[in-house]
Amino acid sequence: MPTGRVEIHAFESRVLAGNPAGDPHVRRVPVWLPPSYDTEPARRYPVLFVLTGFAGRGRMLLNDTAWSLPLDERLDALVAKGCGEMIVVMPDCFTRFGGSQYINSGATGRYTDHLVDELVPWSDATFRTRAHRDHRGVAGKSSGGFGAMTLGMTRPDVFGAVACHSGDMYFEYCYRPDIPRACTVLQRAGGTRAFLERLESNPQKTQDDFTTINILGMAACYSPDPAAEMGVALPFDLATGAFREDVWARWLAFDPVLRLPACEAALRSLRLLFLDCGTRDEFHLHHGARLFARGLGERGIPHVHEEFADSHMNVSYRYDTSLPLLAAALGA
Amino acid sequence: MPTGRVEIHAFESRVLAGNPAGDPHVRRVPVWLPPSYDTEPARRYPVLFVLTGFAGRGRMLLNDTAWSLPLDERLDALVAKGCGEMIVVMPDCFTRFGGSQYINSGATGRYTDHLVDELVPWSDATFRTRAHRDHRGVAGKSSGGFGAMTLGMTRPDVFGAVACHSGDMYFEYCYRPDIPRACTVLQRAGGTRAFLERLESNPQKTQDDFTTINILGMAACYSPDPAAEMGVALPFDLATGAFREDVWARWLAFDPVLRLPACEAALRSLRLLFLDCGTRDEFHLHHGARLFARGLGERGIPHVHEEFADSHMNVSYRYDTSLPLLAAALGA
Amino acid sequence: MPTGRVEIHAFESRVLAGNPAGDPHVRRVPVWLPPSYDTEPARRYPVLFVLTGFAGRGRMLLNDTAWSLPLDERLDALVAKGCGEMIVVMPDCFTRFGGSQYINSGATGRYTDHLVDELVPWSDATFRTRAHRDHRGVAGKSSGGFGAMTLGMTRPDVFGAVACHSGDMYFEYCYRPDIPRACTVLQRAGGTRAFLERLESNPQKTQDDFTTINILGMAACYSPDPAAEMGVALPFDLATGAFREDVWARWLAFDPVLRLPACEAALRSLRLLFLDCGTRDEFHLHHGARLFARGLGERGIPHVHEEFADSHMNVSYRYDTSLPLLAAALGA
Amino acid sequence: MPTGRVEIHAFESRVLAGNPAGDPHVRRVPVWLPPSYDTEPARRYPVLFVLTGFAGRGRMLLNDTAWSLPLDERLDALVAKGCGEMIVVMPDCFTRFGGSQYINSGATGRYTDHLVDELVPWSDATFRTRAHRDHRGVAGKSSGGFGAMTLGMTRPDVFGAVACHSGDMYFEYCYRPDIPRACTVLQRAGGTRAFLERLESNPQKTQDDFTTINILGMAACYSPDPAAEMGVALPFDLATGAFREDVWARWLAFDPVLRLPACEAALRSLRLLFLDCGTRDEFHLHHGARLFARGLGERGIPHVHEEFADSHMNVSYRYDTSLPLLAAALGA
Repeated sequence: MPTGRVEIHAFESRVLAGNPAGDPHVRRVPVWLPPSYDTEPARRYPVLFVLTGFAGRGRMLLNDTAWSLPLDERLDALVAKGCGEMIVVMPDCFTRFGGSQYINSGATGRYTDHLVDELVPWSDATFRTRAHRDHRGVAGKSSGGFGAMTLGMTRPDVFGAVACHSGDMYFEYCYRPDIPRACTVLQRAGGTRAFLERLESNPQKTQDDFTTINILGMAACYSPDPAAEMGVALPFDLATGAFREDVWARWLAFDPVLRLPACEAALRSLRLLFLDCGTRDEFHLHHGARLFARGLGERGIPHVHEEFADSHMNVSYRYDTSLPLLAAALGA
Repeated sequence: MPTGRVEIHAFESRVLAGNPAGDPHVRRVPVWLPPSYDTEPARRYPVLFVLTGFAGRGRMLLNDTAWSLPLDERLDALVAKGCGEMIVVMPDCFTRFGGSQYINSGATGRYTDHLVDELVPWSDATFRTRAHRDHRGVAGKSSGGFGAMTLGMTRPDVFGAVACHSGDMYFEYCYRPDIPRACTVLQRAGGTRAFLERLESNPQKTQDDFTTINILGMAACYSPDPAAEMGVALPFDLATGAFREDVWARWLAFDPVLRLPACEAALRSLRLLFLDCGTRDEFHLHHGARLFARGLGERGIPHVHEEFADSHMNVSYRYDTSLPLLAAALGA
Repeated sequence: MPTGRVEIHAFESRVLAGNPAGDPHVRRVPVWLPPSYDTEPARRYPVLFVLTGFAGRGRMLLNDTAWSLPLDERLDALVAKGCGEMIVVMPDCFTRFGGSQYINSGATGRYTDHLVDELVPWSDATFRTRAHRDHRGVAGKSSGGFGAMTLGMTRPDVFGAVACHSGDMYFEYCYRPDIPRACTVLQRAGGTRAFLERLESNPQKTQDDFTTINILGMAACYSPDPAAEMGVALPFDLATGAFREDVWARWLAFDPVLRLPACEAALRSLRLLFLDCGTRDEFHLHHGARLFARGLGERGIPHVHEEFADSHMNVSYRYDTSLPLLAAALGA
Repeated sequence: MPTGRVEIHAFESRVLAGNPAGDPHVRRVPVWLPPSYDTEPARRYPVLFVLTGFAGRGRMLLNDTAWSLPLDERLDALVAKGCGEMIVVMPDCFTRFGGSQYINSGATGRYTDHLVDELVPWSDATFRTRAHRDHRGVAGKSSGGFGAMTLGMTRPDVFGAVACHSGDMYFEYCYRPDIPRACTVLQRAGGTRAFLERLESNPQKTQDDFTTINILGMAACYSPDPAAEMGVALPFDLATGAFREDVWARWLAFDPVLRLPACEAALRSLRLLFLDCGTRDEFHLHHGARLFARGLGERGIPHVHEEFADSHMNVSYRYDTSLPLLAAALGA
């Protein structure tokens, strides 16, 4: 079986230089080049950006695991079965807060700008891409699904196709239930910085830790506030524990389900709009996907909405469904 | 050690006859009579109503368990250590929906009326109580704590002292997080009646079952609706899964934290206002207790607020703290 | 529906007086008298002894629980459906070590003697039993199932029918896997007495606590040793952590699967020999039940062996199957 | 900070060609070359073989993870702090049964031979190693710790230093408790092949799956049997569920705790003999480590035995302790 190959590039970002979270501005970006890339030197390819979930970065898509395939081997297998060939870029948008949601934030950095203004032109300049939004897609799972959908909704000039797997949406159900526990943990830790330092220094993470870094990470993305500790307004009052409706309203401004009406034209312009979710998703994201798909349906916006009998974890096999659709939609 | 004794009375309620949930209107009500009750036939006693948590009824307070004391033996031990003697009544306000929250509801029945208009006068007529609100208290844990606090806030004419252990309050944190899962389960079951019938026929209950019956039970209490299935408006749209703000607003009308300002005079009139909660409460009720205590403090309302390093479960030992305070406050 | 009634007798045991574990020798013994007991004063009934599981005692069979029936109400319902009437005795063989396995032990007390030499004659003297082994049965679940089976195997002169639900057997699978963890916990606690004192004083029990008290309880029953701390030889060396084959061999002497060949005549003499187990039993007892049933089958000993798709917990509904069979076998 | 670099070599094994499990005989072997390797072309280095745990292979040591370091970055950081420089080889001894325990087995293949007769000479021929057992070490965690210790005990001619982190030993405690559950799962699956095929085809693995593949994997390593399904004798009778003492005795022949007396000379010859374990190890391996260390101490064999307050998972930070000791012992 002919296989593609991975190059891991060190990308020096000007956008991320001096970012507020103190994260590195040089990032390692794996790029998968398809099997024919070296043998057909004149051929150009669609390009797909694959965005990881929370606490992830591009290289993790290549991690070796028993009984599962890393993304490069998954792509090899799909191409062998007839999937069109694409170049696949795996950005690193990790931050000290666990992620960036691929948006610009005053607390983490300008990650949308990093993607759109840096990685996209760099990939077009470096690899033999077909450098047009009709041949450029974005896909991801969980927070990466959120990122893919949000980029499709807001930057249709850059991305012409979207696959959103188990993506964060309907924040009422996917984030709000975890706020009380995050409040308890952050109060006990003594605030944002103390919590982060403990998390970073303690090799074992508890379920409470994951719940809390997830809520804290979302706050860093959705409700940055220069006046707050580490620049992050929390969705609760750390002193009293009370829920903060004002902060929550800022989060909701990013909820794909609520943004859908305003982004109708962008969504309608996509050559593929794919979303799926497991019906036992621990973050209740199947509700969000259904509500989003319902909104699309009511507006007559073409889309593919699938459900599968599984949970939120270990569902990378769902790329076997979306990648061939993306390749076809992007003209591969 | 002299001990009290328990009488279990079959109480035929007129208020509950023909209740909408189809629950029995004859209830078994245990009453604990203190050690001196039979030896001092002229003596009268304060009376305390103890309300169980969700899925409970009075008799469960007497259940035998290894390494723990049933309420009657706990009372014996406390009296032996000097706690004042009271008569203790253990109402049965269980319903098919798992409970009544001790309030009147069009979906379950008029349980406040049953308590206040039936059990109180009956206990005064049947036992040698000191029949005045200054000598009548109410206590409970979890949903029973909610019931005790709510009765203290709304019926200070009837109850003169309150102890609320790990009581339901700040619904934003204690109920709202469980709504997405309840929605998933009820959708899968096919609605309220189908879920209840499965719950009742299946001897094994899962965590999903408990989460769902809890949310369904609260809906039966807080948002009855004759137009809805079984008379219960759910806090989500069963068809789409969307959260229903209108139903939720009805729930919030019962949140003790939000009702506090309107009930200031009642709360100020209490001879004892005790509330506590474990700092690892799985329903995040420690936040509610703190917010409630903060509201009391801001208004200068006397109260006792304690925290303890434990969870929501198996904390009946906390009665060792509240019962002597109640006895003293009620003049025992 | 006519119902039976429960009398709770305080039984003063001479056998248990001064027992080595320091447990009370006066025990409360509930006895269920069937619906016709008071209306047919000349009628005599078979008698069934129902033995609770580990950490249980007779009164717990009467505990009130939502969505389940206590044993007395279960018996009422069965009789209403045609089950023969029996007198049902619910012994209390609880000890400080969590139980007695209903056997005689130098560390806990002589609980078989208490049952056979005290409770049996007392029940025949006190109630209108048919005082013959052909009309006297024994049943139980988990440790109670072990007790029932062991009494059937060793005292067929006393008991003529047995029902063993999810009973302890094939110790290789049901106890041995928990020994390493119990060793860790007891080492950390500082030994048997220190562990017990912590268990008794701490209202919250962890899973480790339950695993450890279970192993410790079995050691108290199966391997008493006057030279060991509190008279109990542990199946591991507390200092080194090493498994003790010599102690384990003492346990195995009580394993019903291994004792079966020696008790063939007794088992063959039973009017009913019923055993069942859930196929998802957490203690792997379905393997033991199968091996026991296989041994019976190989010897042509009549028996009923059932499996059901459930776990070890909350399976009291299985009495709905065994009690009518017992009643019939005992001539009710 | 100067850093080393990783080369991933495709190694074609003659030993593994045609192995009975049908696993590939070409393996990707990462090798970390230390910072000075390219700048000091005449310098030779000790070599360390690092063996992964069950379900692992060398490349997984390089997996990218949030809040933790892959082995190459860990080595970079240690060298920067003064740790001596070594070449580090990361073998791939994964099999269809989840692992090889780094031993020769008729069911999986000759993995000790692959290591000792192929990878060792290849590494000496390919890299600038100091090609003598005094400068060659072996380390690993869990099954890799077992492999390291076993190689130290049996092949002191090849390896002169050992670090065993949370290594499999005292099989009585680390494997035997999981046998009943594995028996249940394999019976339900319908045998070895049916279980493996389901495991391989189902992207979600349950805890039962992991428990079972672990026991099955050990059986493939310790009790191969050409007459059994897939060449693996199970430690229980699949038909009856009964434990098989004969198969278990074959396993015990590999238990480091039991082999220690026979390997005294080899152990005494090691330049470093390091073992550690967390005191909350889920597989109870702290007991094995203590018993092993006790055996070493009784014989006056020099060793380092450490304990740490952690569990079995996510303890790769323990290499920060062992790697500098290994480097020093190997003359780096």
